[in-house]
Amino acid sequence: MESTRQGNLLVVRFSDGDDLISQATWLLEKQGIRSGIVLGGVGMLKPVTFGFYKGGGDYQRIEIERECELCALSGNIAVFGNDLMLHLHGVVGLEDGRAVAGHILGARVHLTCEVALLATEEVMMRKFDPQTGLKKLEFK
Amino acid sequence: MESTRQGNLLVVRFSDGDDLISQATWLLEKQGIRSGIVLGGVGMLKPVTFGFYKGGGDYQRIEIERECELCALSGNIAVFGNDLMLHLHGVVGLEDGRAVAGHILGARVHLTCEVALLATEEVMMRKFDPQTGLKKLEFK
Amino acid sequence: MESTRQGNLLVVRFSDGDDLISQATWLLEKQGIRSGIVLGGVGMLKPVTFGFYKGGGDYQRIEIERECELCALSGNIAVFGNDLMLHLHGVVGLEDGRAVAGHILGARVHLTCEVALLATEEVMMRKFDPQTGLKKLEFK
Repeated sequence: MESTRQGNLLVVRFSDGDDLISQATWLLEKQGIRSGIVLGGVGMLKPVTFGFYKGGGDYQRIEIERECELCALSGNIAVFGNDLMLHLHGVVGLEDGRAVAGHILGARVHLTCEVALLATEEVMMRKFDPQTGLKKLEFK
Repeated sequence: MESTRQGNLLVVRFSDGDDLISQATWLLEKQGIRSGIVLGGVGMLKPVTFGFYKGGGDYQRIEIERECELCALSGNIAVFGNDLMLHLHGVVGLEDGRAVAGHILGARVHLTCEVALLATEEVMMRKFDPQTGLKKLEFK
Repeated sequence: MESTRQGNLLVVRFSDGDDLISQATWLLEKQGIRSGIVLGGVGMLKPVTFGFYKGGGDYQRIEIERECELCALSGNIAVFGNDLMLHLHGVVGLEDGRAVAGHILGARVHLTCEVALLATEEVMMRKFDPQTGLKKLEFK
C-alpha cells in the first residue's frame, strides 16, 4: 500500500492481498483523518463479500470468490464511539461484464486497487439507531 | 433529512420515505447552491424508477418496487430557466446482488441515504436542444 | 465538447460521437492537467468496449454495440513515460436496466456525456510492473 496526501485529498494504491477495509482504516488513522468522503475506487478485488440489508442489523451475504473489476466505490468515513468507521458500497464487474452491487462487508485487493478520499474538517459521527438497527450518520 | 456544509462540500443524510430529488432540490435552494457536482451516494431506495433514453424526450421506464442498495450515484446540479435541475444516474443492487442502472427519474429513500455534493462557483446551465430532445449542459 | 475550469475542478460536456478517452486526453493536455481524479460521469455511450483483466497485459473484451446509459465513471489521470494516461472504469445500464461493468478500453459518446475531474497538484505516475503486466500507479 502506498499513498499521497495533498491537502484534504488522499490517494491510495493498495497492493495484492490487502484487506481493503482494515488497511484503509489503518492508513486513515495514521493520517489523522477521522471523517471524509470516498471519491472513487478502481482496481480488482478477490474475494469480495457484499451485503444486502434485511433490517435488524442483518445483511444477506453475497459472496464473490473469483476476481472481479471494482468499477464504482462510494461511501464515507465517520466516527462511531472511539472507532473510525468506513461505510462502503461498491459495484464490481465479473468476467462476462455482469455487474454485482451492494454494501461492502469485506474485500481483499487482487493485483491492485486505486482509491481517492476527501477528508472533511468537521467530524461526522455515527450513532446506533434502534429503530433501523443501523449506525445512523449524524452531524453536529 | 439532516446536512452539514463545509465550504463547497455538502453532505446530506436523508430519512426513510424522503423523495430523493425533491428533498435534495429543496435543500440546495435553501443552501443557495445552484450548480454543482454529485460526489457520491450510498444507502437504500424504495421504490426507484430508472429511465433509459429513447430519444425525443422519451424514457423507457424501469421500475424497481422492492428495496435496493444504492451503490453508485453520479450527476450534477445546473439551472434550467428559473429552476434548479438535478441530473442523476445511479446503480442499485438487488437482494441477490444483481445490479440495475439508469437515469434516475424518481426515487424514495428506504431507511437512510447519505449523499455528498460539491457546489461550483460558476453556474452551469441547461438549455433545451431540439436535436436530441435533451436539456443540454452549457457553461457560461 | 465544451468545458469549464474552476480552480482544480474541470467539468466537460462531450458531444455525440466523441471518442471519450482521446478527446478527454486532448483536453487535459490543453488544460495543462497531467494528474487527477475522475469525480464522475453521466450520459450515454455507443459503442463501449469493457475489459476484464486476465493477467499478462491481456483483457477479456466485452463489447456493447447498442447505446447505453453511463451510470458510474471512476478512475484517474497519471503520467506514463511522456504520455498522459487515463485509467477509467465504468458501469452502464442497458435498455432493460441490466448493468454491465468493467475497465473501459474504449467508448464513444452517444448524444451527450458530462464528466467531472479534479486536478491534483502533485503528479501521479505509472510504471510498468512486469509481475502483474499492469502499469502500476506510483507517487513520486
